[in-house]
Amino acid sequence: MNLSELRIDGKRLQKTLEEMAIIGATPGGGVQRLTLTDEDKQARDLFIQWLQDLSLNVTIDEMGNIFGKREGLNDDLPPIVSGSHLDSQPKGGRFDGVLGVMGPLEVLWTLHENNIETVRSIVIVDWTNEEGSRFAPCMAGSGVWAGALDRNGVYQRTDLNEACFIDELERIGYRGETPATKWPIHAYYEYHIEQGPNLERERKIIGVPKGIVCLHWYDIYLEGEANQVGPTPMEGRHDALCAAAEMILKVNHLPEKMGGNLVATVGEIQNYPNSRNIIPDKVHFTVDIRSWDDVHAVNAWDDLRRDFEVIADQRGCPIDIEETCRVGHASFDERLVKRVLDTAEELEYSNLYMVSGAGHDASYMNQITATAMIFVPSLNGRSHVEVENTSWKDCEAGANVLLHCILKSANETG
Amino acid sequence: MNLSELRIDGKRLQKTLEEMAIIGATPGGGVQRLTLTDEDKQARDLFIQWLQDLSLNVTIDEMGNIFGKREGLNDDLPPIVSGSHLDSQPKGGRFDGVLGVMGPLEVLWTLHENNIETVRSIVIVDWTNEEGSRFAPCMAGSGVWAGALDRNGVYQRTDLNEACFIDELERIGYRGETPATKWPIHAYYEYHIEQGPNLERERKIIGVPKGIVCLHWYDIYLEGEANQVGPTPMEGRHDALCAAAEMILKVNHLPEKMGGNLVATVGEIQNYPNSRNIIPDKVHFTVDIRSWDDVHAVNAWDDLRRDFEVIADQRGCPIDIEETCRVGHASFDERLVKRVLDTAEELEYSNLYMVSGAGHDASYMNQITATAMIFVPSLNGRSHVEVENTSWKDCEAGANVLLHCILKSANETG
Repeated sequence: MNLSELRIDGKRLQKTLEEMAIIGATPGGGVQRLTLTDEDKQARDLFIQWLQDLSLNVTIDEMGNIFGKREGLNDDLPPIVSGSHLDSQPKGGRFDGVLGVMGPLEVLWTLHENNIETVRSIVIVDWTNEEGSRFAPCMAGSGVWAGALDRNGVYQRTDLNEACFIDELERIGYRGETPATKWPIHAYYEYHIEQGPNLERERKIIGVPKGIVCLHWYDIYLEGEANQVGPTPMEGRHDALCAAAEMILKVNHLPEKMGGNLVATVGEIQNYPNSRNIIPDKVHFTVDIRSWDDVHAVNAWDDLRRDFEVIADQRGCPIDIEETCRVGHASFDERLVKRVLDTAEELEYSNLYMVSGAGHDASYMNQITATAMIFVPSLNGRSHVEVENTSWKDCEAGANVLLHCILKSANETG
Repeated sequence: MNLSELRIDGKRLQKTLEEMAIIGATPGGGVQRLTLTDEDKQARDLFIQWLQDLSLNVTIDEMGNIFGKREGLNDDLPPIVSGSHLDSQPKGGRFDGVLGVMGPLEVLWTLHENNIETVRSIVIVDWTNEEGSRFAPCMAGSGVWAGALDRNGVYQRTDLNEACFIDELERIGYRGETPATKWPIHAYYEYHIEQGPNLERERKIIGVPKGIVCLHWYDIYLEGEANQVGPTPMEGRHDALCAAAEMILKVNHLPEKMGGNLVATVGEIQNYPNSRNIIPDKVHFTVDIRSWDDVHAVNAWDDLRRDFEVIADQRGCPIDIEETCRVGHASFDERLVKRVLDTAEELEYSNLYMVSGAGHDASYMNQITATAMIFVPSLNGRSHVEVENTSWKDCEAGANVLLHCILKSANETG
């Protein structure tokens, strides 16, 4: 057959996405499949069953990353890898991550039923704990595998109930024996929903990120002085929640103040003792800053930190700041990005050259191999929520771009 | 003996307070004795043992309120009642509530060992669930007994673990058979720590509240729009936590803005989904407003509500407001308050005419009988915390005022 006419089976892709969405399904139409929970295990079990249906060579490494390998004609050449993650946010969506695992699975099905061989092997991967919402940091599986994160450090992370990462990994039976260590890769493709409103606004189907913005996470701890609210005069109070409220608004105003490409958000807050008649004496909150321009993000943080310190001082609420993670912006491989653009053109899908505002396992893969991503539109720009949605038609389009990108890379001999 | 020279035994009062503080003692020097827990049961058992040592007539009612009665010469006359509560806040202090139970106990010991008889009976009481931190509402035992709260409504309240009030009351063996219904009382005295800084600031020993400020509780619910923080531009966001932060600061500024006697506090906040990389789409927080002037408090709330609505509108975060409770200010019996003032003067203790910023069982007792309170200083104005402290000397002083107030009331024939 003429390879250029090859297309994936959109109905089959839809079916696998729908089957996967049953696991951890929430009443609001989303999924809750936090990493290393029973639901994550169920999703992994189903995924492995599908890999076995395709007679792939399945490997599970010590981080629980799952690899399924389809042998190429020349196994001496480094393979093409494509994947994403099956874990979700609490009350997350059905597409985030999953599409990037089900996409390459459908690509392999298409090659399989058309008896198409490739020069290089093709590996599909489910990375452990991309979300990081149960165990920080995020992108832990790919980060350790790529050598950017320390395995034992991740193993010891605990969730809100003090459950430990490694214990949970063992509990669900996914602590493999293969070392979580990088091996040579020829190219890495990650297929994902956009998670933003740009494709929809521009009425384009395929998003082609030139890279991923930087990601800076900070954890802020404030101390106040607890007291009964009634008899304690307003003067002289050290209310940690009021200090936090001032800081949250500073974060919110930061992008407008600094200008340029920047977003800044407080997503998480804990307040203690959290009793309506006690003045809060401890608050923890998070700050998330992202920009295409790493220096701009650092400057913005420096400005914010100064504001925080002034507020803490004025309120008499000592502040402790932890720089939880700083991942620089990732420029993807120009040749591979151009391949995604060209492939979208060839398949006659409208497309948009853009940046990714969200972090992905592709961030770490980009550090060790030629990497590119393929985006499809998120309805109303919503993601990480139960109403997250992408049309089946767009899911199919993205998978077709992935198919032809993988084919081109997998048949490169040099 | 000359009754006016009678004094309580400060050492013995200290000893009972210290013995009680062992039950539920926390590493930080406070106590955690939440209502109807095993610790509450232990405290009750010890208290009843002490009532029996004094040969008092012990009654437990169907709310678990414990009464110990010392017969007077004329049992036809309504008795004098004095008491408070043995339950505490989570990580609470050793004095709040307990002092008001151990105080009258020491008064009765003093009468006992001096063979002093009184015209009227004297009843000491431990009210169930004053704190309300495990089962809302607070002051439940006295509220039901005084006829202001519905017994069955309180019975059905559940804690955070879905444990039911009545089940817990039965579990610890303190659901008595006597109906929790008011009977005639001649006077009610409640002895308590100030829980504020006024006595310390003014260098006075005895606080004499003319009454308790009003208490207005509101519950605020905000809705935003969840989204991944990275790819979602700042423009067009509906961030419920930012809306809450603006509102929290409005609450904090309210007393300064309105002037007069007013405190306003946000003590509790819940944020959803509370993930560092999702824009918050649901926030609940509480507002507590207190003033001696009920109208002023209502006007302040009206002003605040308008601000809330403007913020909710500007942020595109729909707001839902619940008026959880409004208890008007309570003016204590003027004659009884004067008795406390005069008694403090007679005993040569410096004193301060003031208001109580905190609610007490005395609020409900004030609805059915002549009521007054006696305050002693809280170190650094702190309470409801482990470091809560009052000097033994001040504890003794307050108990002496209580002794003579009770004696005067108990010997009134008219």
